[in-house]
Amino acid sequence: MSSQRSPLAPQAFPDLPAIGGVTLRIARAGYKDWDRCDLTLATLSPDTAVAGVTTQSRCPSPEVEWCRKALVLGQARALVVNAGNANAFTGRHGREAVETITAAVAREIGCAPSDVFVASTGVIGVPLPTDKAEAGLAAAFSADPCGWEEAAATIMTTDTFAKAAHASAVVGGQRVELVGIVKGSGMIAPDMATMLGFIFTDAAVEAEFLQAALRSANAESFSCITVDSDTSTSDTVLAFATGAAGNRPLSSEDDDGADAFAAALADLCRQLAHLVVRDGEGASKFITVAVEGAESDASAHRIALSIANSPLVKTAIAGEDANWGRVVMAVGKAGEPAERDRLSIRFGATQVARDGLAVPDYDETPVAAHLKDAEVEIGVDLGLGDGRATVWTCDLTHGYIAINADYRS
Amino acid sequence: MSSQRSPLAPQAFPDLPAIGGVTLRIARAGYKDWDRCDLTLATLSPDTAVAGVTTQSRCPSPEVEWCRKALVLGQARALVVNAGNANAFTGRHGREAVETITAAVAREIGCAPSDVFVASTGVIGVPLPTDKAEAGLAAAFSADPCGWEEAAATIMTTDTFAKAAHASAVVGGQRVELVGIVKGSGMIAPDMATMLGFIFTDAAVEAEFLQAALRSANAESFSCITVDSDTSTSDTVLAFATGAAGNRPLSSEDDDGADAFAAALADLCRQLAHLVVRDGEGASKFITVAVEGAESDASAHRIALSIANSPLVKTAIAGEDANWGRVVMAVGKAGEPAERDRLSIRFGATQVARDGLAVPDYDETPVAAHLKDAEVEIGVDLGLGDGRATVWTCDLTHGYIAINADYRS
Repeated sequence: MSSQRSPLAPQAFPDLPAIGGVTLRIARAGYKDWDRCDLTLATLSPDTAVAGVTTQSRCPSPEVEWCRKALVLGQARALVVNAGNANAFTGRHGREAVETITAAVAREIGCAPSDVFVASTGVIGVPLPTDKAEAGLAAAFSADPCGWEEAAATIMTTDTFAKAAHASAVVGGQRVELVGIVKGSGMIAPDMATMLGFIFTDAAVEAEFLQAALRSANAESFSCITVDSDTSTSDTVLAFATGAAGNRPLSSEDDDGADAFAAALADLCRQLAHLVVRDGEGASKFITVAVEGAESDASAHRIALSIANSPLVKTAIAGEDANWGRVVMAVGKAGEPAERDRLSIRFGATQVARDGLAVPDYDETPVAAHLKDAEVEIGVDLGLGDGRATVWTCDLTHGYIAINADYRS
Repeated sequence: MSSQRSPLAPQAFPDLPAIGGVTLRIARAGYKDWDRCDLTLATLSPDTAVAGVTTQSRCPSPEVEWCRKALVLGQARALVVNAGNANAFTGRHGREAVETITAAVAREIGCAPSDVFVASTGVIGVPLPTDKAEAGLAAAFSADPCGWEEAAATIMTTDTFAKAAHASAVVGGQRVELVGIVKGSGMIAPDMATMLGFIFTDAAVEAEFLQAALRSANAESFSCITVDSDTSTSDTVLAFATGAAGNRPLSSEDDDGADAFAAALADLCRQLAHLVVRDGEGASKFITVAVEGAESDASAHRIALSIANSPLVKTAIAGEDANWGRVVMAVGKAGEPAERDRLSIRFGATQVARDGLAVPDYDETPVAAHLKDAEVEIGVDLGLGDGRATVWTCDLTHGYIAINADYRS
């Protein structure tokens, strides 16, 4: 556990509205030997719709498998998040832990177990202790409700700051609010959803449309970030819509306000995704990689990820070194269409290479100045077509090594 | 330039035989501001056959493009290796530098420019200065011949030790020798050849069969190593067969001694590839990743690389942390067929997980002891089929960050 707050963290936790129909509580299950709350319980009003996206890992946790099944029904009454133990790769024991948790919550609030969603995060390979989970749940149910900051802090593991964001929209004349909390700082690679994220809105939204809107928002946000190219076994983003705002339920993109809601959801997801990058393990720079001129958007996305995942690019940025040759290397290794002699590269607003070689009289001074900032942009133009994509990542520093050569226990 | 010798380096440079038909010379071209030789010239007897494999990068250096064209002809009279400047992404200037070098050498020894092979390694994006190259070549041609150790040292960049290996075979009753030198410690990922490697043999081998044997040896050696998942723009492995041993020329795998020659070449390539991993930037552990039970050998290879390239696996090994959950993660993210509940994992000889969960009464003691060694083995059994593959990598340490956040002149 790193305790020093990321230098890229926002100054303060944001002011967030309550979301009608959502009640948050936290408790100490004691999944690890630590002095903090590690179980989060959100209870949701009846008729809450749910949507979700989960990891593409071939070795998902039983929580992910549970959520995938429950998502088919599209309704939710509760969410439980365990921090400190991912419960992944734990076989039958892991599945039993999920069943125990969902059954206990269902009993308490009088719903079906399939209305209860569960996510766990932490070390892989250790079955979640069901006795601690049950005691933690009992403590949570008897606790006073808490606010967003407490909940956002309770789902953290190696995170150095609590992450949340807010968006709003007007739907059929009715203002609706969306709040999301998220955790993640390592094992972050965008193969669908990445890390754990939970979004709550008081908008009335039918599950099918909520799913479509979340899938689309995810493609432009969580699927466009990477810290270390490693994909978690537990990645889950869930969106819950309680309907407390009283708008006429959104059921398709043609409905009045559907565009506004989808845009607000996309904005929220992008804010949350950026917060994850800002807490990337050891991060000292927030890096935007913008690729254009590729043969297709998908090709641009893969090239952008090749750059964003390159250890040599990430260490160069950490060293504030304008080593653009490493960007060439990362484009070249992406396996996507590229023509060396049409390739152009910029750092920030400064063109460093054009059409396959350094610009004439290249002056490194403005680039060196840009690289000293906490926010760095790498721009690549393939010169081939109209494909474009943007991804976000952080640099690779001694901090990443220090955190990951020691983390566990 | 890192100056501290890798802790994984062999104790000493090996004793190597001279190869008939090969003359080595070195000189100071001064490609960088350093006090060392940086130009290597190998001249080769007439009728030397050549084979090669080059980078899969879409942005290759002009040297790589030159070698690809010249390889079609299958014959060589000289090799020039420049260290300190990769001459990659330098447009017309870079191509002209290669043409100047090959023309100068061809003039000096009386051969066609296409008989001259060139490789350059170092920083990307700076055209190789032709005046320094020409002066360096002139100095080399008037220098006394040198030995393998001087040549192996002269092709180095961030390498911390000179790398060479030896193999021999009996071909048609005649003993033949093979010697290889290699450089590389970062930007090492196996997408065909990786880094620069040069192999010299006195065997008489026709170019077509030499190419087939090299391609096969490469697939089991250089294509099975990774340091940082980054693929160089300049990767080149060339094999030169002078024929000085006087054996009846090998022209197909059915020839007497062809198997022995191919096996010796494969052995040599594997030795050289391991040396590159042993000099991986910042490496403190040599890691073997052995995957079996996959659906195919190709699938096993991709899963093994996913493990070997995972920053979280590599930092765990650096920390001597038996965090096998990260191996599960890396298998899961590979995108290859895998069934969580059939997956088994071992560290060294100790099984840590079987059929999707930790082994009963798992005792970490022998694993912790194994992880303290300089050589670590990770074994994965997918439990699905007969596919198997082995790759080699090193751990990810503070040393990698220190080298790469600063490297560049």
